[in-house]
Amino acid sequence: MAAAAATLARRITRSGVLPLCRRLPVWGRAARRPPGLPLAPCRAFSNKKIQVDMNESSGVATMKFKSPPVNSLNLDFLTEFCISLEKLENDRACRGIIITSAIPKIFSSGLDITEMCGKSTEHYTEFWRAVQEMWLRLYSSNMVTLAVVNGSSPAGGCLIALSCDYRIMADNPKYTIGLNEAQLGIVAPFWFKDTFVNVVGQRVAERSLQLGSLYPAPEALKFGIVDELVPEEKLQEKATAVMAQWLALPDHARQITKSMMRKAVLDLLVAHREEDIKNFTSFVSKESIQKSLRMYMEMLKKKKS
Amino acid sequence: MAAAAATLARRITRSGVLPLCRRLPVWGRAARRPPGLPLAPCRAFSNKKIQVDMNESSGVATMKFKSPPVNSLNLDFLTEFCISLEKLENDRACRGIIITSAIPKIFSSGLDITEMCGKSTEHYTEFWRAVQEMWLRLYSSNMVTLAVVNGSSPAGGCLIALSCDYRIMADNPKYTIGLNEAQLGIVAPFWFKDTFVNVVGQRVAERSLQLGSLYPAPEALKFGIVDELVPEEKLQEKATAVMAQWLALPDHARQITKSMMRKAVLDLLVAHREEDIKNFTSFVSKESIQKSLRMYMEMLKKKKS
Amino acid sequence: MAAAAATLARRITRSGVLPLCRRLPVWGRAARRPPGLPLAPCRAFSNKKIQVDMNESSGVATMKFKSPPVNSLNLDFLTEFCISLEKLENDRACRGIIITSAIPKIFSSGLDITEMCGKSTEHYTEFWRAVQEMWLRLYSSNMVTLAVVNGSSPAGGCLIALSCDYRIMADNPKYTIGLNEAQLGIVAPFWFKDTFVNVVGQRVAERSLQLGSLYPAPEALKFGIVDELVPEEKLQEKATAVMAQWLALPDHARQITKSMMRKAVLDLLVAHREEDIKNFTSFVSKESIQKSLRMYMEMLKKKKS
Repeated sequence: MAAAAATLARRITRSGVLPLCRRLPVWGRAARRPPGLPLAPCRAFSNKKIQVDMNESSGVATMKFKSPPVNSLNLDFLTEFCISLEKLENDRACRGIIITSAIPKIFSSGLDITEMCGKSTEHYTEFWRAVQEMWLRLYSSNMVTLAVVNGSSPAGGCLIALSCDYRIMADNPKYTIGLNEAQLGIVAPFWFKDTFVNVVGQRVAERSLQLGSLYPAPEALKFGIVDELVPEEKLQEKATAVMAQWLALPDHARQITKSMMRKAVLDLLVAHREEDIKNFTSFVSKESIQKSLRMYMEMLKKKKS
Repeated sequence: MAAAAATLARRITRSGVLPLCRRLPVWGRAARRPPGLPLAPCRAFSNKKIQVDMNESSGVATMKFKSPPVNSLNLDFLTEFCISLEKLENDRACRGIIITSAIPKIFSSGLDITEMCGKSTEHYTEFWRAVQEMWLRLYSSNMVTLAVVNGSSPAGGCLIALSCDYRIMADNPKYTIGLNEAQLGIVAPFWFKDTFVNVVGQRVAERSLQLGSLYPAPEALKFGIVDELVPEEKLQEKATAVMAQWLALPDHARQITKSMMRKAVLDLLVAHREEDIKNFTSFVSKESIQKSLRMYMEMLKKKKS
Repeated sequence: MAAAAATLARRITRSGVLPLCRRLPVWGRAARRPPGLPLAPCRAFSNKKIQVDMNESSGVATMKFKSPPVNSLNLDFLTEFCISLEKLENDRACRGIIITSAIPKIFSSGLDITEMCGKSTEHYTEFWRAVQEMWLRLYSSNMVTLAVVNGSSPAGGCLIALSCDYRIMADNPKYTIGLNEAQLGIVAPFWFKDTFVNVVGQRVAERSLQLGSLYPAPEALKFGIVDELVPEEKLQEKATAVMAQWLALPDHARQITKSMMRKAVLDLLVAHREEDIKNFTSFVSKESIQKSLRMYMEMLKKKKS
C-alpha cells in the first residue's frame, strides 16, 4: 500500500494531469467508479497529518486534520489529503465525509507560505499541482462532503470549506474565515474565485477578495460563507444530523445533480491547468512577491513571540 | 380552429423544433408577432384541462389549471397549455397572463410520472418535447406572466412558477414548492437548473437541487423562490394589482429587457434540444430509474389510501 | 495641456476604440501604467463640469459633479469625465477617487436625453462612444473607486455608482437610485445590465430592469444596490474611513483581483463595441423611440413648471 501511495503521489505531483475527469458523472449516467482502478481496502487508517475514521454502519468517514501547529497545507499534507480522498472515493462503503480539525481553535491556516518562499521553480510547480489536485478531487467528489469548521480558516483553509457541499461553523466570533490572500499581497487564483462566487455570489466575492476580508463566524453566516453556526460542543451531533439528511437522498441522483452544478467551474481549471501552474510559478518567483511573503512571515513570527 | 390546434399539437409533439425563436425579441428590435402566423380569434375559450378567461378591458388573461386530482403535467395537459399560450401570445389584445389553479390546495404536482413509466422511446420523446416546448414558450413569452401559486407546487409545477416574471404564493405553510426531483431518484435537467439559478442564485440552487428540497411557503419566500406571500383570500386582488404595475410599462421596452435577461438560458436549450431529448429518453429507460419511479408511485398510492 | 485634452477627446469620441485594454491588468502581472503615455502633471485642477481635488497626503482625489441643474451626462460632461479619469489614472500619486455631486439632492440624472433627440446618426455615434468610454475607464480603473451618492441617481447616474468598488448613499428616502430606462420606453444596454447583475444578482436585476424601478435609499440598501446608508452630514467622514480601509491593501494584489472579477464583462463590450454603437443609433433613430423620448421630455418640463 505504501508503494501504491507513493505512485499516486508521483502521479499527482509530477507527471501531470490525473485522469480525474473520468470520474466526473455526466447527465444521464450515474457516477461509477472506474473499473480500471483497484479498490483499496479502506477501513480505519491513520497517517501522519490527517486521521481518517470510517464508520461502517453509517458509511461516513471523518477526516481530522492533525498537523500542528496550524494545519498548514504543505506538500506532504496535500499529498496525504489527496490519497485519503482517493481511497475513500474508491471505497464503495463510504458515502460521505466529514472534514474537521483535531487542533484547537484552527481548522486550517491555508497554504504553507514556506512552500512559496525561496524555493525552486520545480518546487513551486510540484506544490501548485498538488493544490490544484486537492481542489479538483474535493470539489468534484461523489461523496457528500461536510465541512465542520471548528476554528479559524483563512485562505486555503477557507477554500477547503467552500469546496464541500455544506459548511457548519463553531459559533465563536473569535474564529474567522475568508479568502484573505490580497492582505498578503498575493492573489487568489481564478478557481478559488469561481468556487467563492458559486457560494456567496459575485458581489460579496468581489468586495471580499479585494479587501482580503476575514469574517468572524457571525458575519460569515450573514454573507453565506457558511450555512449554519452551532455551539462548539454540539458540532459533532449536528454534523451527524446534517450528514444523515444528505445521505437520505439516492446517491446517483444527488451525484449527477452536484456534477451539473459544478462542472463548468471544474472544467475551467482542467482546461487551463498547466497555464495556471505557469502563472503561479512566475508570479511567486517575482522578487516583489517574495519580499511581501517574507515580510508577512516575519510579522507572523513576531505575533507569536 | 380545431384543425389548427391539432396541427399545432402535431408540430409541437411530433415534427421537431417549433420555429419559436422567430418570436424572441432581440436588442434594438421591438418584439413583433411573426407575420406568417394567422391571428387566432381569441376571446374566452375553455378546454378540457385549462380554463382561460380573457378580460378585454384590462388585456389580462387568466389561465386556471383544472385537471383533477392534482393538475399533473401529462401530454394532453402540456399540449393544451402550449396551444393556449400560443393563442394568447398571438392575440394583440392580450398583454399579460395570470397562471393559477382551480383545484384546492394544489397548483400543479409537476410532470406526470405515468408518462415516464413503462412506455416506448417514442412516447418518452414526444412527452419530453412537449415539456421543453411548454418551458420555451412560457420563459420567452412577450406577455407579462404572473404565477399565483395557490397550493403546493413540486417539480414541474415549480418550474412553471419559476418561468413567470413574478410569483405570489398563498401564505400557508402547508403548501410547499421546490424542485424535488432528486428525492425521486431522478435529476432536474440543465434548463430546470438554469431557470432555478436565475431566480435564487447558484448556492441556493445547488443545495436545494441536491437535497430535492420542498419549501413551505414562508421558507420559499426567504430563499427567493417566490416574491411575495399573500393571504389566500387576497390572492386575486393582489394579482390584479401586481399585473397593473407591470402593465404600466411600455410593452416593447419591457419585452426587449426580458429577452436580454433570459436569452442565454433559452438559447442553450434551443441549441441542445435533440440531445436533451435523447438524454432524457435513455435515462428514463434505464431499469434502475424505472424501478425508482415505480416505487415512488406505489408510495404515493399508499399515501392516498 | 489643453491641446492634449483635445487630442484625447478626439480619440475618445471620433477615432474609435481607445487602447484601453493595455491598462487592464492580467493575472500574474501587476498593473502598470503604459510607458508610452506621458504622465500629466496632475494636482488640483478644475474644469467646467467636474471639480477635481487631489489630496496629496492621502493619495485620494475627489471628483465633484457640478453641472447644473442635474449633472446630466451630455457629450461635454462625458468627455471631461474621461479626461479627468485618465489624468488621475496616470498620476502615480493618486490611488483612489471619491465620486460625488456638488449639486444638492442630485447625484446625476443620467444620460442627457437631448443628446438622443432629433440629432444626426453621427452625433448619436459620437455620444454613445463617449458613454461606453466612460464606463470602460471607470469599471476597469486601477484606482479604488468610491461613489458617495448624495442625491438621486437614476439611469446613467446609477451606472456610475454601480461601476465603482463601493457605494455609500445618503440616508434619505427622498433620494432614489435605479436603472429606470424601461420607464422611458428605452432599454438599458447589455453592459449596463451586466454591471447591474454583478452587483445585485440576476433576479433582482431582471425584475428591476423590466419594471424600470427607482428605489428609495432604504430599499436600495435592502436590494444591495448600495452598500451602506449614512446620514448626509456624515458622508464625507464615512467616505474617508472607507477609502482608508481599501487603501490599506497592497495596490497590485487588489488591482489584479479587481480585474479578475470584472474582466469577462469588460471584454464583452470591448469585443462588441462597434456593434453596440450601431444598435444604439438605429434604435434611437426609430420614430417610435423619438416619440417616447419627446413625450418624456415634455413630461419633465411640465413637472418643473
